[in-house]
Amino acid sequence: MTDADLVELRRDLHRHPEPAWCEFYTTARLVDELEKRDLDALYVGSEALADDRVGVPDDGELSDWLDRARDAGAREDVLARLDGGHTGAVAVAERGDGPTVALRVDIDGLPITESTEADHAPAAAGFRSENEGYMHACGHDAHATIGVGVLDAILDSDFDGTLKVFFQPGEEKIVGGEPMATSGHLDDVDALLAVHVGLDHPTGQIVAGIDGFLAVSQFEATFSGSPSHAGARPEAGENAMQAAATAIGNLYGIPRHADGATRVNVGVIEGGTATNIVPERVRIEGEVRGETTELMEYIDEKARRVLRSAAEMHGCEVEIERAGTAPSAESDDDLREIVADVARDTSGVTSVLDTDHLGGSEDATYLMQRVQEGGGSAAYVGVGTDHPGGHHTSTFDVDEASIDVAVDVLSRSLIECARRRD
Amino acid sequence: MTDADLVELRRDLHRHPEPAWCEFYTTARLVDELEKRDLDALYVGSEALADDRVGVPDDGELSDWLDRARDAGAREDVLARLDGGHTGAVAVAERGDGPTVALRVDIDGLPITESTEADHAPAAAGFRSENEGYMHACGHDAHATIGVGVLDAILDSDFDGTLKVFFQPGEEKIVGGEPMATSGHLDDVDALLAVHVGLDHPTGQIVAGIDGFLAVSQFEATFSGSPSHAGARPEAGENAMQAAATAIGNLYGIPRHADGATRVNVGVIEGGTATNIVPERVRIEGEVRGETTELMEYIDEKARRVLRSAAEMHGCEVEIERAGTAPSAESDDDLREIVADVARDTSGVTSVLDTDHLGGSEDATYLMQRVQEGGGSAAYVGVGTDHPGGHHTSTFDVDEASIDVAVDVLSRSLIECARRRD
Amino acid sequence: MTDADLVELRRDLHRHPEPAWCEFYTTARLVDELEKRDLDALYVGSEALADDRVGVPDDGELSDWLDRARDAGAREDVLARLDGGHTGAVAVAERGDGPTVALRVDIDGLPITESTEADHAPAAAGFRSENEGYMHACGHDAHATIGVGVLDAILDSDFDGTLKVFFQPGEEKIVGGEPMATSGHLDDVDALLAVHVGLDHPTGQIVAGIDGFLAVSQFEATFSGSPSHAGARPEAGENAMQAAATAIGNLYGIPRHADGATRVNVGVIEGGTATNIVPERVRIEGEVRGETTELMEYIDEKARRVLRSAAEMHGCEVEIERAGTAPSAESDDDLREIVADVARDTSGVTSVLDTDHLGGSEDATYLMQRVQEGGGSAAYVGVGTDHPGGHHTSTFDVDEASIDVAVDVLSRSLIECARRRD
Amino acid sequence: MTDADLVELRRDLHRHPEPAWCEFYTTARLVDELEKRDLDALYVGSEALADDRVGVPDDGELSDWLDRARDAGAREDVLARLDGGHTGAVAVAERGDGPTVALRVDIDGLPITESTEADHAPAAAGFRSENEGYMHACGHDAHATIGVGVLDAILDSDFDGTLKVFFQPGEEKIVGGEPMATSGHLDDVDALLAVHVGLDHPTGQIVAGIDGFLAVSQFEATFSGSPSHAGARPEAGENAMQAAATAIGNLYGIPRHADGATRVNVGVIEGGTATNIVPERVRIEGEVRGETTELMEYIDEKARRVLRSAAEMHGCEVEIERAGTAPSAESDDDLREIVADVARDTSGVTSVLDTDHLGGSEDATYLMQRVQEGGGSAAYVGVGTDHPGGHHTSTFDVDEASIDVAVDVLSRSLIECARRRD
Repeated sequence: MTDADLVELRRDLHRHPEPAWCEFYTTARLVDELEKRDLDALYVGSEALADDRVGVPDDGELSDWLDRARDAGAREDVLARLDGGHTGAVAVAERGDGPTVALRVDIDGLPITESTEADHAPAAAGFRSENEGYMHACGHDAHATIGVGVLDAILDSDFDGTLKVFFQPGEEKIVGGEPMATSGHLDDVDALLAVHVGLDHPTGQIVAGIDGFLAVSQFEATFSGSPSHAGARPEAGENAMQAAATAIGNLYGIPRHADGATRVNVGVIEGGTATNIVPERVRIEGEVRGETTELMEYIDEKARRVLRSAAEMHGCEVEIERAGTAPSAESDDDLREIVADVARDTSGVTSVLDTDHLGGSEDATYLMQRVQEGGGSAAYVGVGTDHPGGHHTSTFDVDEASIDVAVDVLSRSLIECARRRD
Repeated sequence: MTDADLVELRRDLHRHPEPAWCEFYTTARLVDELEKRDLDALYVGSEALADDRVGVPDDGELSDWLDRARDAGAREDVLARLDGGHTGAVAVAERGDGPTVALRVDIDGLPITESTEADHAPAAAGFRSENEGYMHACGHDAHATIGVGVLDAILDSDFDGTLKVFFQPGEEKIVGGEPMATSGHLDDVDALLAVHVGLDHPTGQIVAGIDGFLAVSQFEATFSGSPSHAGARPEAGENAMQAAATAIGNLYGIPRHADGATRVNVGVIEGGTATNIVPERVRIEGEVRGETTELMEYIDEKARRVLRSAAEMHGCEVEIERAGTAPSAESDDDLREIVADVARDTSGVTSVLDTDHLGGSEDATYLMQRVQEGGGSAAYVGVGTDHPGGHHTSTFDVDEASIDVAVDVLSRSLIECARRRD
Repeated sequence: MTDADLVELRRDLHRHPEPAWCEFYTTARLVDELEKRDLDALYVGSEALADDRVGVPDDGELSDWLDRARDAGAREDVLARLDGGHTGAVAVAERGDGPTVALRVDIDGLPITESTEADHAPAAAGFRSENEGYMHACGHDAHATIGVGVLDAILDSDFDGTLKVFFQPGEEKIVGGEPMATSGHLDDVDALLAVHVGLDHPTGQIVAGIDGFLAVSQFEATFSGSPSHAGARPEAGENAMQAAATAIGNLYGIPRHADGATRVNVGVIEGGTATNIVPERVRIEGEVRGETTELMEYIDEKARRVLRSAAEMHGCEVEIERAGTAPSAESDDDLREIVADVARDTSGVTSVLDTDHLGGSEDATYLMQRVQEGGGSAAYVGVGTDHPGGHHTSTFDVDEASIDVAVDVLSRSLIECARRRD
Repeated sequence: MTDADLVELRRDLHRHPEPAWCEFYTTARLVDELEKRDLDALYVGSEALADDRVGVPDDGELSDWLDRARDAGAREDVLARLDGGHTGAVAVAERGDGPTVALRVDIDGLPITESTEADHAPAAAGFRSENEGYMHACGHDAHATIGVGVLDAILDSDFDGTLKVFFQPGEEKIVGGEPMATSGHLDDVDALLAVHVGLDHPTGQIVAGIDGFLAVSQFEATFSGSPSHAGARPEAGENAMQAAATAIGNLYGIPRHADGATRVNVGVIEGGTATNIVPERVRIEGEVRGETTELMEYIDEKARRVLRSAAEMHGCEVEIERAGTAPSAESDDDLREIVADVARDTSGVTSVLDTDHLGGSEDATYLMQRVQEGGGSAAYVGVGTDHPGGHHTSTFDVDEASIDVAVDVLSRSLIECARRRD
């Protein structure tokens, strides 16, 4: 694919942002491209994922997004393989007996309405989101494009080894990483690079290995009590509102941990029916994080105890469902060194940082951890791109010049990984 | 109107339940009937209400209900007089120099989906709600019908005095009582009867004067803080969720009062946007009640202090809006005696109770209080009716035989009031 | 005993106020008096009480009070019968075959330092408390005296029946009523009067039967967790302070009850050791009350659930100990009528009220309930007395003229009870 | 002073542990020793401290400790200079024109009862605490001794410069550091070493510069409301217990900070008078900490807002008093290097660590910060000592062999500091 083709692909994906497990058009478009290559295997949908998934939308919502993908021209035969929201793909190319190296890119969009301002390039150039209310506001359109570009660059090289490119769904809700990590496709990978554009780094800057991922676990807790008339029979209710309020107050009060940073947040709440009814049901959505997976598990365990005790205190039941999760992870020094060396020698790269601190969460860590546990190495590479608006805002955009830089740095780094490991 | 006509009217109203300030069809149908009588005045919409109203739906919702009323055949000229959701009416008939007596009935429905079961009479007999999701589940269709019936009965008698019948909107949300009470139309009333059917009393039973109304004030409080990323910048947010949780916990903890019963409830909550965002906005809806208006005001004042301090504690603002309110009230003994005397002498009445305790709230109390403050008397009369399902449930229905009983007892009581006061 | 003797007795008791289960001097002095009468039985200490008692001070404290009693001249042989803090007595006089009537008086003092002001009669007249820090600030010195006076008056009359006078310990801590009520001595009582002086009624006023006793149960709850250094290992503690704070917030939030008044209070708290230690232990003392015993039990059960869940939420244990309790009770109309009739005919009585509302708690209710359950009647009689300071304040005092009034009204009422029951 | 003299001095100080601002015997004993040296200045008591002090005991307690010091043989003329609890001293020796170097040692004991077990050396060898209930359980007896030893060693060397030794009171309550730091005596110091023995490092191990001090601020908050009878007038009270409970719950919930560790603890609580009284007064003692002074100030400001709003919410006042405080600080690399170099070359030193992480707080940081702000350098040196029991436990003791090691390392390091700075 030429640079112009890559830009065209990125813009097409940008026009069709889709949320977790609904990346129907995106997957179909990628599969359509990938099938044109000389691959040894292309795993699609449930072939690319373990069975156990969380956060899958209900049938109605899946069906709506499937219809949109169809209307946008997605191939029916591919859509059939994505049934039930099994999106994403893994492309495999074997070129000799060398080691197995891999790239992970994510492909989903966000529930953000894209800017229509004239100075927002996608609006001006006619590739603004066609899925109103949704937007590629974190550059995953570029990531998926880079995945195809890296594949082409390596197929076109003297690479000796096996290459796998993981097109991962559901990163924004941190639900896609775990089922892809446990699909089996990672088990023979010797070196894995993940990539993210932007993150406040300008075009031309490369971060060889990002660290500082907070392990995270999201939960949804539903308190269920009994309703009663708040005026006539206040004592007859079991008040889910009081249970939830007590839980929230105490969740934020879970003790800090001396071993490192922890986080807790209750981000969403809804419940009750009328001012004069003792509330029967209140639902909260929240999350806990830790600087390490152990710290996240510490606060997660305490949070569950708070939720259960608060329910019990007010005669309620509480159902706790795990939503998205991601462990902590660190980039390995050997890969960091390769990427830094390669980057310094790559045209278009103007500065190279050894590392940076993310301070947030990312479920690429599941894939990194899987590779590291199997004896391989992993690194999370930052590719600078001038972005006018911040990540997750309506005016986010990428500098398309950085796509080419990313493809160069990543493909040459993976080739070098294979060479050194050999 | 014949008994059969009254039943027909009740069933027509039953088919068209409408919520507070949206009683367009109901008001139009009543006005259409009332204009056929020899009235001295008929105040409609804003003529029947003071200007200051709370709980008025937004224009879109008003417009939807107006359309439904139009589609159901409401008279356009009447609808025009109800613009902006000024529903309800006051009918006045002067018959000599005697005192002014009045009846208050309410006319609104509830957001409850009516049963479709074969043993639910409205479903079986074809007058189930045509406004799906709404239902006359508290007998206000019967109340409005009784209003017309009483008017007819008195016009047809040797009544000496002035009769006013108040068709009050918005009782279920306790928003209609206050603007009707302060409209001026109550200021010359010497004796007021309000009526409610059912309340677990069987057909044939009359309660001469109900007491035990809890004064009530509903509120909506919106906490506004600042959002931030819960993982990356937890300290940068001002957490509206923590403010709301602290408020809720402390609202329920407002001290009991030695002078009588108080109540507090937070019935509805919603807020926040995502698990990883410190919540910027959380909205709660609640209410306070008291056995007397003073007790309600005691707990209301404390509740406002809790709401403000909880906001301040977490760096948030809180906007508190009053929603519906109603004072406490007591039925006067002179009217209670008249109603009891009349009832014992009325065909179809099988038992008479002097009083009963409501234990809930009702904004007829605003009208009762207005009359009592002006030197008149007021009583809240219960008219038994066999009702298969409980009030505010999907299978509630009235025994239509009780409509006639109510008309007889109330019309004869009002005539007697005028006679004794004279 | 002459009126002057009664005053002398009252002043001697006033000089020796003693708290619950430590009424050693008081009991010994009373026994010394009672043994001079022609009694059929005199039950002292453990003979007057059931075995099961709460709130008994530790041995050191009992021993201290025993020493004080000894130093004040109490008879050693009586003190020996009060071993272990089994204070109080029951005097029995049989005079014919008539019914068994009874009077209950309480005998304990309060931990209040008595005024030394010149206008405080006990200070001026030289009978101020000799037990510094303790005081008869609620008139129990007068009550005990009235008990002796009534006994004398009845022995001196043509009374036909059996008279029992109950000198009850530990009313202020509501710990004496239950073991005396279940001692067996109440089981054959046909009519019981209890008495209280003052209560804001002036000398000369009699309340024939007081109602409005709130049932009460006091508790002590100790939360135990694990300490840790709050700076170095905040996560290693199990925080009893957080458990207690959560419990307190939620105790006050236990829902009101539609059937009547409830109360909850956490009156005392102490715990923790240093600012830099996660608190291992926090102890609270509180109480719940209800307009009826059932309402008290409703809120008591909810309170225990709150305490247990709050402990669990923070990884703590909680030990809950019941302290004093008292049920609700109502004065019977038949006795109320007798007392009112007698009072209207008694010299020194200037006004008679049928009833009054206490609004607090009293463990005479245990004895009243016992008699009522056995088929007898009971009433709680108020005897007015001008009291300069309020009850439970350092300047409280009784008008000694009211002692004679009380003796007359109560003795003649009991004689009349026996007569009417016969 | 010989090594034996130093041991004798340490044991004498060990026998007389004294708390903050009561180090009368200790200061007098040290002054007595110091006056024997050829000093250029010796500042005692208020000469050694700025005026503004917190945590000073009341007159009665000061007077008690003064009496004990007197009884133990302290010199009256020195005690006179310590009036009002102005304890501590600064010794100054000028030896040429070289730089000013300084050592800071702390001198106070802890409210811990010392072990009487035979295997506890001070008990076995007869120098157990003579102030029962107090103990040198953190080695400050050794620190003060080391201060004298270092002074002697430097006076006995070819040191060129000025030496200041700070004998600081009140470290355990972190109240002595600030007034000594702002006394003016630190303002010309070019290099400051502070020292602590033990901290789980064995005899022979030196830590050249300890870091990881948490900035800390302790507070005492007293909530004052109005009492009322919890049964009869629950609404009439302003409940300080509810205010305190709400404050505690929300203090622990102050958001974590992305820039580093924060801490909050409520360590002590007491209040209320009886179960049936709405509590009028509840007092809490707590603390906030931060990895940096800024982080401590962040959480301190939030804590004050919580305390004030919680009081306001329940109609109470809150009085907040600052107790002890200490900033964060870091050891400077230049001094760390000198100490490490010297230590590696010192007899008795078996291992040298560049740094260690304290994880707690220490008010030597006030002195370190003062020197650093004036352009000087500072380091906090750890001197290992085998200690059988943990710090702040009843069996803590130091290996006296480490005193000599400390004197050697610190005196030679300070001499080297002067040399390199010159």
